Amino acid sequence: MRLVLDAMGGDHAPAAPVEGALLFAREHPAHEVVLVGDLVRLREPLSQAGGLPPNVRLHPASQVVEMEDHAFSAIRRKKDSSLRVGFELVRRGEADALVSAGHSGAVMAGGLLVLGRIPGVERPAIATLLPALEGVGRCLLLDAGANVECRPVHLAQWAVLGAAYVRARLGIPRPRVALLSNGEEPSKGTSLTREASALLRASDLAFTGYVEGKDLFSGDVEVVVTDGFTGNVVLKTSEGVAAAVTGLLRSAIERRGGLPEKLGALLLQPTFTGLKKVMDYAEYGGAPLLGIEGVGIVAHGRSSPRALQKALEAALQTAQAGLRTELTRCIADAAAWLPARQRGKGATAEAFSD
Amino acid sequence: MRLVLDAMGGDHAPAAPVEGALLFAREHPAHEVVLVGDLVRLREPLSQAGGLPPNVRLHPASQVVEMEDHAFSAIRRKKDSSLRVGFELVRRGEADALVSAGHSGAVMAGGLLVLGRIPGVERPAIATLLPALEGVGRCLLLDAGANVECRPVHLAQWAVLGAAYVRARLGIPRPRVALLSNGEEPSKGTSLTREASALLRASDLAFTGYVEGKDLFSGDVEVVVTDGFTGNVVLKTSEGVAAAVTGLLRSAIERRGGLPEKLGALLLQPTFTGLKKVMDYAEYGGAPLLGIEGVGIVAHGRSSPRALQKALEAALQTAQAGLRTELTRCIADAAAWLPARQRGKGATAEAFSD
Repeated sequence: MRLVLDAMGGDHAPAAPVEGALLFAREHPAHEVVLVGDLVRLREPLSQAGGLPPNVRLHPASQVVEMEDHAFSAIRRKKDSSLRVGFELVRRGEADALVSAGHSGAVMAGGLLVLGRIPGVERPAIATLLPALEGVGRCLLLDAGANVECRPVHLAQWAVLGAAYVRARLGIPRPRVALLSNGEEPSKGTSLTREASALLRASDLAFTGYVEGKDLFSGDVEVVVTDGFTGNVVLKTSEGVAAAVTGLLRSAIERRGGLPEKLGALLLQPTFTGLKKVMDYAEYGGAPLLGIEGVGIVAHGRSSPRALQKALEAALQTAQAGLRTELTRCIADAAAWLPARQRGKGATAEAFSD
Repeated sequence: MRLVLDAMGGDHAPAAPVEGALLFAREHPAHEVVLVGDLVRLREPLSQAGGLPPNVRLHPASQVVEMEDHAFSAIRRKKDSSLRVGFELVRRGEADALVSAGHSGAVMAGGLLVLGRIPGVERPAIATLLPALEGVGRCLLLDAGANVECRPVHLAQWAVLGAAYVRARLGIPRPRVALLSNGEEPSKGTSLTREASALLRASDLAFTGYVEGKDLFSGDVEVVVTDGFTGNVVLKTSEGVAAAVTGLLRSAIERRGGLPEKLGALLLQPTFTGLKKVMDYAEYGGAPLLGIEGVGIVAHGRSSPRALQKALEAALQTAQAGLRTELTRCIADAAAWLPARQRGKGATAEAFSD
């Protein structure tokens, strides 16, 4: 497989993408990484890394999609941006997947405008696998931030895509699917969730109804669907709480600062390290953009080289899984219960938010 | 002060409210608690508790608002429900505040329909003070679940109410106010947050723009405003993550199960207990319903007796702080920048969701 890595995307670009590409390339000699970006700006991190291994190639792109850019217009206007050029390589079949830690809205826009949508999908969604907790299964949350204003049919389609992804990637034959809401009772929710719920009750999915925020980590469902605004807020709140709890523990140990605390912390060091690893997003690779005609992986903006290595591994596995065929089939099957809205082929920038 | 406690509200009613009332009453002999509920069902927990102290009174109410009830119609139809009867006591000046761990939408409906709104406030909001973390200030999140579908003017009014509350209760002269969004850039958010942002930029509040979920615990802002759907999801996600992280730590210690882990856990026991206390919602009392003509406190549905005692203390402090005068003044002052929408005096059930 040949994987594109956007060398200009993310808070630590281009150094982190360069290092991440090398980490991946060394571990996967049979596969290739194409670093797309400004070759002048790549020179320094590349020389620091000691040059290129044979399975890392460079591909030039003179422009960069900035975080302040409007996603769709940036992809349209910046024709030589690393993100657009990278997606063009995938479209032409010169690469099998793209990974970017840049502007996630622009990754969605690029996937949509350059690769196009799977037939029947109105909007792609970012699907994030939440950390597995001891004894508790993993849960896929989508949309994690691509679409802030949604219609019920979008949520229903993401339920189909999410279930297909979990089935293919985690081997769970019939994943339980739920909608995120402000209470479990059917009377709760917004008009968006209630209408999506009506669609999903008529589906052939294992739809369990509404779940609350706490249920994301309970192991009771494998797929949780929500709009991209709520999904993004949920993910960032989770990060914040996890960091606060561990920070609180650390400072409590330091503040007490007695010999028992120091010794206790020392004895529990392997446990704390294990905990940190479970909670570290860097271990989980990127989040796939589901619903596009190809593989696009959104990595965390703060991605370290290690996180980008993991995201490349996620891209490799997703590309190898032949997921696109499976998603296409599931969306086609869903036409039996999911009324398709006929729309123009090209999505307009107005239909999406950054 | 005389405080009403809804004896029928919450997962552990009526036992937990009875015990909570007694805990509070013993510590505050100068104040009085009125337990409102079904006197037959109160007999058993009262006899178990060893009878009533002189500053706990009973007041009969034959009906109960159930969790499945529609909030507004329950308050309208169940005229002898503990919640409605309790609010009537406050309205007639026979009590100074109400606390309930029951249906939070119905607490809002009761406050609104029985006590009415502060002039200029379109909708009351539930305001939750998030746990203070070491070295980091506290943050008030509103709306925490009363209103799932909102307009920009609601968010702007809650910003005013939230800032006034934090000023009065925490003594912060000029609290920083932000809107919760899916990114910090002004281009992020929904049409709701963008329009609310435009209103707040023209305000005299210390408005800092958008914050993300992680910033709820960063200490950078004192008031975070969002719609009640997102607010509820955020709170429940936070609970879920905190419980998952501590559970993960516990099970990691148990799973390793060696002598070092056991000894380490023992040595860190006081630290873990301190951590649990900081994260325990029971320590934080209830969340005030801001914007109504009186004091209403929403306690967590799973409230223990201890949590209800704390909620009664919050009610006492809020009633003593004379907050209503202050909130009324602030909302009146905000008329200078916040365009008032003229609406009928009575709010309709249709305007609110459960």
